[in-house]
Amino acid sequence: MTDLAKELAAVVGPAHVLTDPAVAMSYLVDWTGRWRGTCRLVVRPGSTEQVTAVIAACAAAGAPIVPQGGNTGLVGGGVPVDLPEAVLLSLRRLTDLGPVDRNGTVVAGAGSTLASIQQHAHAAGWDLGLDFASRDSATVGGAVATNAGGVRVLRYGDARRQVLGVEAVLASGALVSHVDGPMKESAGYDLGSLLAGSEGTLGVLTRVRVRLVPQLPARAVALLAVDGVAEAQAVLDSVQSEVDGLTAAELFLRDGLSLVLAATGAAPPFSRGWPAYLLLECGGRVDPLEALASVLADQAEVRDAAVASDATGRAALWRYREAHTESISAAGVPVKLDVGLPAAGLADAEYAIRAAVDEVAPGARVIIFGHLAEANLHVNVLDAPSDRVDAVSDAVLRTVAERGGSVSAEHGIGRAKPRWLGLTRSAADIAAMRRIKSALDPDGLLNPGVLFDR
Amino acid sequence: MTDLAKELAAVVGPAHVLTDPAVAMSYLVDWTGRWRGTCRLVVRPGSTEQVTAVIAACAAAGAPIVPQGGNTGLVGGGVPVDLPEAVLLSLRRLTDLGPVDRNGTVVAGAGSTLASIQQHAHAAGWDLGLDFASRDSATVGGAVATNAGGVRVLRYGDARRQVLGVEAVLASGALVSHVDGPMKESAGYDLGSLLAGSEGTLGVLTRVRVRLVPQLPARAVALLAVDGVAEAQAVLDSVQSEVDGLTAAELFLRDGLSLVLAATGAAPPFSRGWPAYLLLECGGRVDPLEALASVLADQAEVRDAAVASDATGRAALWRYREAHTESISAAGVPVKLDVGLPAAGLADAEYAIRAAVDEVAPGARVIIFGHLAEANLHVNVLDAPSDRVDAVSDAVLRTVAERGGSVSAEHGIGRAKPRWLGLTRSAADIAAMRRIKSALDPDGLLNPGVLFDR
Repeated sequence: MTDLAKELAAVVGPAHVLTDPAVAMSYLVDWTGRWRGTCRLVVRPGSTEQVTAVIAACAAAGAPIVPQGGNTGLVGGGVPVDLPEAVLLSLRRLTDLGPVDRNGTVVAGAGSTLASIQQHAHAAGWDLGLDFASRDSATVGGAVATNAGGVRVLRYGDARRQVLGVEAVLASGALVSHVDGPMKESAGYDLGSLLAGSEGTLGVLTRVRVRLVPQLPARAVALLAVDGVAEAQAVLDSVQSEVDGLTAAELFLRDGLSLVLAATGAAPPFSRGWPAYLLLECGGRVDPLEALASVLADQAEVRDAAVASDATGRAALWRYREAHTESISAAGVPVKLDVGLPAAGLADAEYAIRAAVDEVAPGARVIIFGHLAEANLHVNVLDAPSDRVDAVSDAVLRTVAERGGSVSAEHGIGRAKPRWLGLTRSAADIAAMRRIKSALDPDGLLNPGVLFDR
Repeated sequence: MTDLAKELAAVVGPAHVLTDPAVAMSYLVDWTGRWRGTCRLVVRPGSTEQVTAVIAACAAAGAPIVPQGGNTGLVGGGVPVDLPEAVLLSLRRLTDLGPVDRNGTVVAGAGSTLASIQQHAHAAGWDLGLDFASRDSATVGGAVATNAGGVRVLRYGDARRQVLGVEAVLASGALVSHVDGPMKESAGYDLGSLLAGSEGTLGVLTRVRVRLVPQLPARAVALLAVDGVAEAQAVLDSVQSEVDGLTAAELFLRDGLSLVLAATGAAPPFSRGWPAYLLLECGGRVDPLEALASVLADQAEVRDAAVASDATGRAALWRYREAHTESISAAGVPVKLDVGLPAAGLADAEYAIRAAVDEVAPGARVIIFGHLAEANLHVNVLDAPSDRVDAVSDAVLRTVAERGGSVSAEHGIGRAKPRWLGLTRSAADIAAMRRIKSALDPDGLLNPGVLFDR
């Protein structure tokens, strides 16, 4: 054992310092297989105090730190690529959940999975405003650090908007903490909002205070077949203006559904295939099925529809959407991009993205799905030659930027996209970000290579 | 004219550089009369480019800058107290309003009043999630810079939560800008969230992109008489769990209502007085009056009630609450404090605050009202001897902090409360804030004396 390993073992216990690469493997490869790293060791502290001590020891040893939550990120932000000298700091043992207070706020350890917070909230009559398919592994610390989105953004906003305060260890070893007190405050800079979306480059989150939302006892889901993206948008616009309580509006397309049916063995939702599908969910105090169905009956763009308000029926419809990620991975290692676009021109943008990929990687398959209300498309490119991966990313991201879009809607920049950050953020913005980074982490200890090129 | 005045006149035109103290007076005194300042000159740029040039000229001359919106703040943050060398930078001419896009976002000049944005939003079927009594004067730039709250926070959150991006000039003269593009993004540090609540100490907001909310065509208001704060909380808890669409829950007390009746000449709401009053507003697609009234009929704590869903009736009930600020000012220059408390123990805290004031300023009148759902109390102390003003603030803020509360829920720290910031924020938090301040404004050009002691 090296000196640093011994020192860390004294802090967290020898069982929580992993130096054998075979044992550490699950921390060093992301689940898509796209990002692989090596590191000096993996350390798994069990408390805020241990995180503080670990960071102090790493700083003293000059060892860069890569923080990691559930390792479900999609941009390599938690994988120590080309960082053999790094310490991988797993927050997964920080799973304490405080009581839900009468205002519906709860303090969760950074390593709490979204599912564990959801269950905890449900037991108190509340719910978490944040949800996505990797809920059983994704941690709240990771979700906040990356400002994750998911399927409830249209109703509740992104991860940053759920945060009332954070506890975090800075590179200096200082513990900033603002996880108790009243739920409304205007008293100084909001470090929680700054750390949200900073992808582990400014501090290591140890606890997060989140605002819960009222639990919706009744839900209805509709899966609609339509002729394309523009038609899906038209239906969504009508539903948004006529139905209360919309919680999700998810888009997927013919080719994505084919992969899902192949990977899951599920029966097709309709007797024939259609170009595009829109999954809508409404929630409220009373079953929203009737109100939703009545608005949908008037929509000329709806070619076929399946609706459900019982739990089994809803889960079956959601499965067509949520199985996309795993079904795409079952078909290969995709180039995964996550772009936001202006709502106007989204259908055109979809065609332009396909054309841009076809130009640099002819024959590659482009599987697109996403969150329609925010015009957030997940672009997955399968079968691109390995020497064309960067060219594919470049072609897609430039196409998006030319149309006023963003290179990341919800996955973050990570190690995948620093060189394209300038397509979305101005030089002055990036300079200000670098000044903040230097102020809080002057030695570049935290997650080097993420957000900013090294 | 000094050299700086001439230089600024060349930028903004001579009509927009005010050097005569008599002419500049309305910028130098806040409307409560509590904060009075002097300055070198007042400058009123009419565009972002002019703001950039003004800041560059002030930086070159070493003149501190005090940014000001509608001058409706309550903590002296926009008044150049003890800063005769300062330039007061009024943003009130930046009133451009962009189109409301299909996602319900709009880009507003920092000097746009809340009322002007509300009207603009209404015309497009949307509304602003931010509202408070000074809406006709308060600017969106000021509201965001102070992370203002108001009467809709329980439904839509504070000012920071309405912000999708900002354009701002930093002390360096750099223009950071993120007011277009898609509505969801996770691509680097969120400078908008950081500037929100920074009270003009990190940058000068020139434009703000806000997220609008669906306009609620029907509203119902209920004014309820109850026996005290705890009873008001019990009623609110029931209503929150049984009625959809609550948009406001405002508290005021017997002595505050007396001042309002005296100042406005309005008829009392009920045939006799009661210890406390709770004003509830619900909004939705259909008139919520019946649903609200039916829940209220079951509330044993409600001693008397008046309800209205027509515009005139609603305005009359709201007037009892909204006239508080002006009616208190009509009775004298109050010590104004704005505290957040944990919801549990709020009634006890109210008594403790009164007792604490009575100890340091016997005979002073303590008028309390506020936003009940967030346990945010506005504490107004009348008739305190001028040499006891600081002692009153100290006594109230320490009482609040001992109970886990915050020294500012929505007004900010300003020049009124830097020495009490440490009651709410930890030393590590404040140290991190100072590092960020130094990184973005190394020479302390922007709003010296605000947030941090000079």
